[in-house]
Amino acid sequence: MSAPIVHGGAITEAAARFGGAPDDWLDLSTGINPCPVALPEIDARAWHRLPDRHLEEATRAAAQGYYRTGKLLPLPVPGTQAVIQLLPRLAAPGRHAAIFSPTYGEYARVLKATGFVVDPVARADDLSAAHGIVVLVNPNNPTGRLFLPDEILAMATALKAHGGLLVVDEAFGDLEPEASVAPHVAAHDNLVVFRSFGKFFGLAGLRLGFVVAGSTIIESFREWLGPWAVSGPALAVSAKLLESDTKPIRDAILQRNEALHAVLCGAGLNVVGGTGLFALVDHERANDLHAGLCRERILTRKFDYDRRWLRIGLAADADGDRRLAEALRRAGV
Amino acid sequence: MSAPIVHGGAITEAAARFGGAPDDWLDLSTGINPCPVALPEIDARAWHRLPDRHLEEATRAAAQGYYRTGKLLPLPVPGTQAVIQLLPRLAAPGRHAAIFSPTYGEYARVLKATGFVVDPVARADDLSAAHGIVVLVNPNNPTGRLFLPDEILAMATALKAHGGLLVVDEAFGDLEPEASVAPHVAAHDNLVVFRSFGKFFGLAGLRLGFVVAGSTIIESFREWLGPWAVSGPALAVSAKLLESDTKPIRDAILQRNEALHAVLCGAGLNVVGGTGLFALVDHERANDLHAGLCRERILTRKFDYDRRWLRIGLAADADGDRRLAEALRRAGV
Repeated sequence: MSAPIVHGGAITEAAARFGGAPDDWLDLSTGINPCPVALPEIDARAWHRLPDRHLEEATRAAAQGYYRTGKLLPLPVPGTQAVIQLLPRLAAPGRHAAIFSPTYGEYARVLKATGFVVDPVARADDLSAAHGIVVLVNPNNPTGRLFLPDEILAMATALKAHGGLLVVDEAFGDLEPEASVAPHVAAHDNLVVFRSFGKFFGLAGLRLGFVVAGSTIIESFREWLGPWAVSGPALAVSAKLLESDTKPIRDAILQRNEALHAVLCGAGLNVVGGTGLFALVDHERANDLHAGLCRERILTRKFDYDRRWLRIGLAADADGDRRLAEALRRAGV
Repeated sequence: MSAPIVHGGAITEAAARFGGAPDDWLDLSTGINPCPVALPEIDARAWHRLPDRHLEEATRAAAQGYYRTGKLLPLPVPGTQAVIQLLPRLAAPGRHAAIFSPTYGEYARVLKATGFVVDPVARADDLSAAHGIVVLVNPNNPTGRLFLPDEILAMATALKAHGGLLVVDEAFGDLEPEASVAPHVAAHDNLVVFRSFGKFFGLAGLRLGFVVAGSTIIESFREWLGPWAVSGPALAVSAKLLESDTKPIRDAILQRNEALHAVLCGAGLNVVGGTGLFALVDHERANDLHAGLCRERILTRKFDYDRRWLRIGLAADADGDRRLAEALRRAGV
């Protein structure tokens, strides 16, 4: 087992260390839409019964439209994390894994824990025939670096020549639909796309993601996860929301994102990256800034591997923006 | 991959084969309480946020009381199925697995799929030093056979002498609390208990179960499942319900069970086993009876391995009882 990673969502620990009840804290440590969409009505049977096939089929059809996967039906899974845990089984044993880095830490943690040599890479040119599996988070967390579909598909084609698999995690892809390669998976059988439902819709507690892949990989994931892996409420809610008009969600996120940037800019901070759902700040003493904000009961995300970086998520409203602005003033770093 | 198993909850397939819309069917194929308890209010944050540690801790504390695990905190997992899928990782490679049989088919399917030799056993005397892992469903599904704690603990002690692990699945144990070995796990580090939340409370769509085990095994499951394996709504709902007065639930199930037995007895059927949540019928032409009930849009559970058996779950109300009674008359097998 590797050491635990500090994840977003760890308000309990922060409160234990810096004081205050968890409810007193403003959690800006995650990349989740802070303005969750209203829950659609959930049929009582979704709670009561084992998730039946027609419920799953409705969700898959809705996801097929939303993610524009053409003939492929995305597979609902209980959060992207659940399939990251299974990723080592997709990778050819004995070959290296490549991860476009720095990025979400769970990929390296899980692959290393199962014995893979993990090569951090930065460019398509860094990939070689040694790489049996390649992971690209796009747009990247936390930098926001974005590869365009043409570049990604060229990588997939090159990897295919020596049996390599390309996994593209589009967890923060809802605001960049034109960058998604989900519509191209049908034409590339060594390309796998992970999508997150909860971040954009603001429903991370549901634990729901989707895998877009060819039928062999989908059937493997289905077998490994076993029957009824996703909860009935998650299927019922997503089937409705994926078919709803998502423009108001997008607009609300972009408005919140503008407000965040105004606060950070007003505090003289240097924003060096991010996505619609968070900003990445570069700061000489990012750890001190993190601690200063913790003393103000605001949790942000710092990084072991880059002590100049602080990731800051969206506040839910103008009150939250003001609280952050005030806390940044008082943190005075 | 092994062949798919016919599970309860497969109304979609039954309707496709025998006709009718899924909603027209009476599903008696599962062992789920058909009278789900009213949902407690769910805090919006349980949907919105990644399940935070204090939410999980509240659920674990409630489960500790409900399952009477003493000093041990049960681990919430996304359904028993999720941990059955991981069971091969707990078993010592190269040694045999023993499963008290016949029983719930997923244990044999998953262990065989990962290369284990599985010995079906019937008595404690059938166990030997060859068995690295032993699975006992108690009370058993579908027979209802019940081992008492003393017998189970003696098996655990005997297995411990040669490093064997005993997994006791108490999915249908809520109505037989005195038979549970969950209170004894703290004193037996080679004993693991699986509990199902959804069957007794009638909330199978939630996908929630618990593992009671020593800290090494709990940490392994936690590592394999990864962070946030259980949904926020599942944690929030169970934290409240596990601390509620469950006598009305128990009474309702027992009343429904009596009604089921009255129907089966009235139809002249031979009930040879079951638990509070289902009855097991022995019938010379059980498959024909199953098909006859399907023609009446009632789904029951038949078994490949015993063509004389039919498992019949509880109907939700007297209307359901009458519908079953009438269908049994018309099926006329």
